[in-house]
Amino acid sequence: MDKQSILVGFGAAVAARRKEKGISQERLAEIVGLHRTYVGAVERGERNCTLTTIFRIAEGLNWSPEELVRNGMFATQ
Amino acid sequence: MDKQSILVGFGAAVAARRKEKGISQERLAEIVGLHRTYVGAVERGERNCTLTTIFRIAEGLNWSPEELVRNGMFATQ
Repeated sequence: MDKQSILVGFGAAVAARRKEKGISQERLAEIVGLHRTYVGAVERGERNCTLTTIFRIAEGLNWSPEELVRNGMFATQ
Repeated sequence: MDKQSILVGFGAAVAARRKEKGISQERLAEIVGLHRTYVGAVERGERNCTLTTIFRIAEGLNWSPEELVRNGMFATQ
């Protein structure tokens, strides 16, 4: 899987889960302690999150990190 | 889960899988195109890998990224 597909897929999974939970990018950013513009960039596949940030975002979405990663893989297919 | 536990757990999962496959850090580094010292640092929990590096390492270990992340969580318990 190429780098761009990985990032875009992950971002799509974050966005889908966030919308499912009915929260804004601002709210998610607040919950996980990241900047709103960073969350937006992640969702657009413009940022390559570190492992610990993946854990923070997953926690903010009430998801396990592995589920978030798995859903990111499906999102790119 | 605190940052240090996440990194140490992930590194332990990488090391365990690599040894299970009977390959050296040097060999894994070669396969995934990373420096040997970087792989060593990851296994000791001293590096916070990005999402795309997690995918590369998982591929080098013939694992899915989600399995690698999941095993990292178990490794810390």
